[in-house]
Amino acid sequence: MTDNAVTDINIAYQGIKGAYSEEAALKYFGGEKYSVPCRIFEDVFEKVSNGEAEAGVLPIENSFTGAVYQNYDLLLKSQLWISGETHIRIKHNLIAHPGAKIEDIKKVYSHPQGLGQCRKFLNKYPGIEQMAAGNTAESVQLIKENGWKDAAAIASKNAADYYEMEIIGEGIEDIEENYTRFLILTKERNVPEGADKTSIVYSVNNTPGALYKSLSVFALRDIGLSKIESRPLHGKPWEYFFYIDIDESIVNKNCSNALNHLREIADYFKVLGSYCRMEIT
Amino acid sequence: MTDNAVTDINIAYQGIKGAYSEEAALKYFGGEKYSVPCRIFEDVFEKVSNGEAEAGVLPIENSFTGAVYQNYDLLLKSQLWISGETHIRIKHNLIAHPGAKIEDIKKVYSHPQGLGQCRKFLNKYPGIEQMAAGNTAESVQLIKENGWKDAAAIASKNAADYYEMEIIGEGIEDIEENYTRFLILTKERNVPEGADKTSIVYSVNNTPGALYKSLSVFALRDIGLSKIESRPLHGKPWEYFFYIDIDESIVNKNCSNALNHLREIADYFKVLGSYCRMEIT
Repeated sequence: MTDNAVTDINIAYQGIKGAYSEEAALKYFGGEKYSVPCRIFEDVFEKVSNGEAEAGVLPIENSFTGAVYQNYDLLLKSQLWISGETHIRIKHNLIAHPGAKIEDIKKVYSHPQGLGQCRKFLNKYPGIEQMAAGNTAESVQLIKENGWKDAAAIASKNAADYYEMEIIGEGIEDIEENYTRFLILTKERNVPEGADKTSIVYSVNNTPGALYKSLSVFALRDIGLSKIESRPLHGKPWEYFFYIDIDESIVNKNCSNALNHLREIADYFKVLGSYCRMEIT
Repeated sequence: MTDNAVTDINIAYQGIKGAYSEEAALKYFGGEKYSVPCRIFEDVFEKVSNGEAEAGVLPIENSFTGAVYQNYDLLLKSQLWISGETHIRIKHNLIAHPGAKIEDIKKVYSHPQGLGQCRKFLNKYPGIEQMAAGNTAESVQLIKENGWKDAAAIASKNAADYYEMEIIGEGIEDIEENYTRFLILTKERNVPEGADKTSIVYSVNNTPGALYKSLSVFALRDIGLSKIESRPLHGKPWEYFFYIDIDESIVNKNCSNALNHLREIADYFKVLGSYCRMEIT
């Protein structure tokens, strides 16, 4: 159990048993608790908002394939609060029915990011057709339930164990430094003790130097940024929302001054949460 | 024909006849020319690099769903040069076999971005299953060739016409301001007359204020930026490449000074191209 360990609370995550999001939930909240699998990311937001789950676990970024852009867009619309983060090392495996050989495999199923993260491995087997599934663990469930002996899935060891399937290729991801970062979402806007990171989203008017000026509110106060992401501003082609992670807690006076300064110049501004940074260990 | 009109040159684009990329190629290069459909984006780069095509047309960004991130990653690795841009208004249609009714449709096929851009329309039909295809035009070809009367595709009017299928829902995209921007790639590193835009990619060391300092090379010279995009730097979790579009030609002394200044402080630096901005008209 980690410091965040709680018992018997409902945690919403996208996917089914064996999903990487479930692994992230277990890592953050520790051992025993109820969990609430969701079909789509929107359901994670919904179940935390309506109280069915006390927290949600949402993948936001992979160190190899980049941001989960859909979830940035959902954060913009949501009233939920980022109250923590965690990340897990992604180790993909080729999973098939017990006794299957790689030579038998005609199709491989996974989430598009899963397929994208195993490109070098898959390039060695040009005869194997690549099929998109909604989730890595779902792809294991799919070939299991349909009894497809000539199909394989790319997913975690957890998923292979859960569905009693066999790993016929271990650690097949392109690079070792493959981590996915997850956000912990809650309804309450609490800032945990020791918070050292704040996430915001804003837009500025489309004039020369507007982005630079907006970033100066942090630079002038020696506040570092660990991430900037831009997403389209709907209805205004080629204008953007900027999502920024700031290396300070919102309760820090220096940080709140910077945010008040940014409010002065931003057309749109919202704090998404303030929480404890989790380093890769 | 546009000012860029040429005759009988080979243009590579991803997709098949009727794809939005083909429409972009026609818009940029004008009327009559050969075209070279490619299965995947990598093939567009390959065919321009090996001389099979004299130019490539590559979607880079949609005003609604955001960047085509895969293509940013491919630009990083490629030696091709961005020598132009264009954009087309995306108008999606629900396309089915002649005589089909919306009530008959059980499945709808399209590129995931196509499905994502018609969410409001599709939400009205929760009974219709959404299926991912490699390309919008391919989804029309798929239901045509398989004779699937209970399936529809989301694609352009061009695709419906080309495959002699029927539009049973017109202009079903969520918002009207739906444009996709395409880059024109060439082997030659020419800067066209009237160029007023330059695209670069760079990385800086992971120290506080590094991004801000890197942007100051433009701000100090009153050079505007029209876009910033960040993508993961492989092998260094949570570090990034920044892709920036600058509002000046590289042949402009002010711009080349700024780029030389950026070279001093960047760990990695590459110019992707310099070309004429195309405004939405």
